[in-house]
Amino acid sequence: MYTNFMNKLVSLKNNRIFEFLVISVIIISALEIGAKTYELDPKIVLFTKYLDIFVTVFFLIEISIRFLADENKRHFFKNGWNVFDTLVVVISLIPIQDSEMALLARLVRIFRVLRMVSVIPELRVLINSLLKALPQLGYVLLLMFIIFYIYAAIGSFLFAPINTVLWGNIAISMLTLFRIMTFEDWTDIQYETMEVYPFSWIFYLTFIFFTAFAFLNMVIGIVVSVMEQEHELAKIVKNGPEPSLADLQNEIRELKAMIFHSQSQSNMSHNKPETLQTE
Amino acid sequence: MYTNFMNKLVSLKNNRIFEFLVISVIIISALEIGAKTYELDPKIVLFTKYLDIFVTVFFLIEISIRFLADENKRHFFKNGWNVFDTLVVVISLIPIQDSEMALLARLVRIFRVLRMVSVIPELRVLINSLLKALPQLGYVLLLMFIIFYIYAAIGSFLFAPINTVLWGNIAISMLTLFRIMTFEDWTDIQYETMEVYPFSWIFYLTFIFFTAFAFLNMVIGIVVSVMEQEHELAKIVKNGPEPSLADLQNEIRELKAMIFHSQSQSNMSHNKPETLQTE
Amino acid sequence: MYTNFMNKLVSLKNNRIFEFLVISVIIISALEIGAKTYELDPKIVLFTKYLDIFVTVFFLIEISIRFLADENKRHFFKNGWNVFDTLVVVISLIPIQDSEMALLARLVRIFRVLRMVSVIPELRVLINSLLKALPQLGYVLLLMFIIFYIYAAIGSFLFAPINTVLWGNIAISMLTLFRIMTFEDWTDIQYETMEVYPFSWIFYLTFIFFTAFAFLNMVIGIVVSVMEQEHELAKIVKNGPEPSLADLQNEIRELKAMIFHSQSQSNMSHNKPETLQTE
Amino acid sequence: MYTNFMNKLVSLKNNRIFEFLVISVIIISALEIGAKTYELDPKIVLFTKYLDIFVTVFFLIEISIRFLADENKRHFFKNGWNVFDTLVVVISLIPIQDSEMALLARLVRIFRVLRMVSVIPELRVLINSLLKALPQLGYVLLLMFIIFYIYAAIGSFLFAPINTVLWGNIAISMLTLFRIMTFEDWTDIQYETMEVYPFSWIFYLTFIFFTAFAFLNMVIGIVVSVMEQEHELAKIVKNGPEPSLADLQNEIRELKAMIFHSQSQSNMSHNKPETLQTE
Repeated sequence: MYTNFMNKLVSLKNNRIFEFLVISVIIISALEIGAKTYELDPKIVLFTKYLDIFVTVFFLIEISIRFLADENKRHFFKNGWNVFDTLVVVISLIPIQDSEMALLARLVRIFRVLRMVSVIPELRVLINSLLKALPQLGYVLLLMFIIFYIYAAIGSFLFAPINTVLWGNIAISMLTLFRIMTFEDWTDIQYETMEVYPFSWIFYLTFIFFTAFAFLNMVIGIVVSVMEQEHELAKIVKNGPEPSLADLQNEIRELKAMIFHSQSQSNMSHNKPETLQTE
Repeated sequence: MYTNFMNKLVSLKNNRIFEFLVISVIIISALEIGAKTYELDPKIVLFTKYLDIFVTVFFLIEISIRFLADENKRHFFKNGWNVFDTLVVVISLIPIQDSEMALLARLVRIFRVLRMVSVIPELRVLINSLLKALPQLGYVLLLMFIIFYIYAAIGSFLFAPINTVLWGNIAISMLTLFRIMTFEDWTDIQYETMEVYPFSWIFYLTFIFFTAFAFLNMVIGIVVSVMEQEHELAKIVKNGPEPSLADLQNEIRELKAMIFHSQSQSNMSHNKPETLQTE
Repeated sequence: MYTNFMNKLVSLKNNRIFEFLVISVIIISALEIGAKTYELDPKIVLFTKYLDIFVTVFFLIEISIRFLADENKRHFFKNGWNVFDTLVVVISLIPIQDSEMALLARLVRIFRVLRMVSVIPELRVLINSLLKALPQLGYVLLLMFIIFYIYAAIGSFLFAPINTVLWGNIAISMLTLFRIMTFEDWTDIQYETMEVYPFSWIFYLTFIFFTAFAFLNMVIGIVVSVMEQEHELAKIVKNGPEPSLADLQNEIRELKAMIFHSQSQSNMSHNKPETLQTE
Repeated sequence: MYTNFMNKLVSLKNNRIFEFLVISVIIISALEIGAKTYELDPKIVLFTKYLDIFVTVFFLIEISIRFLADENKRHFFKNGWNVFDTLVVVISLIPIQDSEMALLARLVRIFRVLRMVSVIPELRVLINSLLKALPQLGYVLLLMFIIFYIYAAIGSFLFAPINTVLWGNIAISMLTLFRIMTFEDWTDIQYETMEVYPFSWIFYLTFIFFTAFAFLNMVIGIVVSVMEQEHELAKIVKNGPEPSLADLQNEIRELKAMIFHSQSQSNMSHNKPETLQTE
């Protein structure tokens, strides 16, 4: 009877209609979140409260089904997406009476929309390819942070007396530098400091050059490398592993050895009769 | 006699001068649309009215010729470009007396300029490659929409009391986020909210990071994949399908088998005479 | 004696010091042009006049040497760079007394700086690769022009009453659209029209999407294709033309045919003795 | 005893804990630099002075150990990173009493943060790949400088009377052009000059087109080429040098020659017995 129940759960979990239902509830939940940003009728506000309870309960049931239907229970939480789904559901279960916490509760509910990503496989692939690029990204981000830190320190030392709002300390300076990197009214900042230090344009130009180049370097490099990996993977999945040119070379060399062997043997075998015949 | 007429139509349809004439009329039609945006002499306005009738009639004749010259009439409307051309012609045939509809009629006429794309093959190729990229684009756009939705919900909850014009509800917030994505005076928005929430820069920086990275990821990924497809296609069209390395490996292995077979046979054939001779 | 003179010219033309001298004079000419944008002493102004005559004469002599040293005089003007160099020199020879033309004369002299490109081979390669990309670029530019034209027509019809300075006619509208494409204060334009047409954000968002995507598509596509061509070219120059996989397959098949032939022959030759021996 | 001491130094240099200690001190030094940009307690200011001395001494000891542990002392300064590290340490040893020089001393100390790059191998790889791209970058930068110079000269001649602050001389004009290249309020500049020269938009549009295209061309070109080099390198390191298709073709041709040789020999050897037997 237990196996019977299990089989029903598994077939439910893989059911197309069930999948469609889950996506629908996520969309309804997302629309509810969006609707709450408008001024609403008290009636509709009451309705959203009931809707909220329904969504919470539905998600709780859905995650339970997926957990129970999983053959290997330990494996379930090794999948990052399952952990994420469970967290979103569990946190929204915590009862919040306090009015101050209401805002936080609302914010947590917003993350329900992200469940869209965990449910649609194509989006999961996109996010995974992004995550795969992260380790490579890490060192470039560190390098950019070092560039920002050095320029922010210089900017803070030199320009703080000129404009405290923009260059007051190293943290503010880094935010200002990020603004300069996005080219957002950066010339106003430049003209201001150029009145005191006429050569301060060197500061801005080198910074823009370094960050723009490093950023492009990073993004293009990562995107292409991730793409290549997937391309390679797709190739292997499609054709089985292709032999390399070196593999082919080895095969040809084996052929040569075989022919050489055959030749010498053939010569031997021919020579023998000849010598026999000359006797 | 009918076949004779058909042949004439086909030869007319493929005539270089006819093609040139069609392009000329499209250009004249485009110039007329442009001219109408200027203050014009009443005489010229009258002239454009006659010109308009001429263009409409010409397009009607041209599409009729193309339809009649097509061997397979059913196939004609399976081509998206033909459907587009027919729609543009048919809609401009609808008589509009109502002055309110005049603006709409003008707008429809603007799409005649797009007929340029359907007439010049090179432009059609460009648009087709864009359309080919669309399915891949779909999921990335969905992902970006989710990112926008979540950030817009958060922004709306937190910043609506600070500036209703920018963060009033989730729709306005999404437009504001698009503005931030284009770096258009985004620091003004940031400085405003930082006065209330000093750490709101995290909101803007993570948003810019996610969207910029996702956008680049998307565009580069799609462009390169579309390019690869066409490159691959061009290769196959040019050389016939190239053998894969695995094909070559198989051929070499067949060779080995042949030589091995030849060797063992040759040994047998040699051994036989030998044994004969030793007898 | 003439051949002797010719040889001297050719050796002069290929002389490293002569090349260096030409580059120096171009740099001096460029510095002179730059210096003229500052307020100068009357003495220095007089000096620049003499310098100008020197540079003109020097360029005239240099182009004459290069022309005379060229073996095939007809070929000389088939090279675009030679035509450009000659034009720059000839135009600066035209005497200008008229004070109104002085500005034009100054502008022409600025193009002398471009001679830098025609003299340094590496820069010539860069420009050539740019020119090679132009035919491909042409159709994408035409497509973008059509997008601009359609949006400018729509913008002009709808928004001209709102702001004549930005949307007055189709030409002004196209300039405004180019401004929007560069994200330059585009939200101000958008907010203005949204007051009359609340859905006009669709106009801006679709336009930005089309142009940004088309532009990236174009630039990346062209750059990569040009790079591939040069990569391919470099490969061929380096290794001689590489055999294709299909070439290798043919060679292996020839091998098979040889072995098959050898085998059957060998069998025949073995069979013969055998039959002889059985006799 | 000396070898013993040497061995200890080498093992210390390669010690993981020692490496970790060095990175920690660099981070502390960086934090100190950052802290100094804030208003500090006199006590903490005194503490940073002692910290400064500690960092200086620590770096001096560390670089000494690395120098002493290096087997080939001459080789040590051929490594650019070692030269950089030594310079940073030596310059911060110079005692500065003069209050005017205090600012300079602070600036030099900031470069200590860059030691992070020389210590972490992954960052060193990133910088090296950037430096490898520089020679290729050089000519593109020269080309862009020529474009800037020509447009700045034209801009200065034509627009100087309109706005001296932006177009006063060729140097200011180049800075203005850089601003235009980053799309920073460039339409304000354009509208101003268009009042005098209505066709001056041609100046801006062609400039934006040239620089944007050249810049993208450059960056993408360099990034891809550097990536390809590293990809190629990684392949060779991993598999040993792969044979080219031409290598394979040669091997197959050798095979053919062997078989042809074997065949003719085999025919000869067969013919001989036959002729013997017919005797």
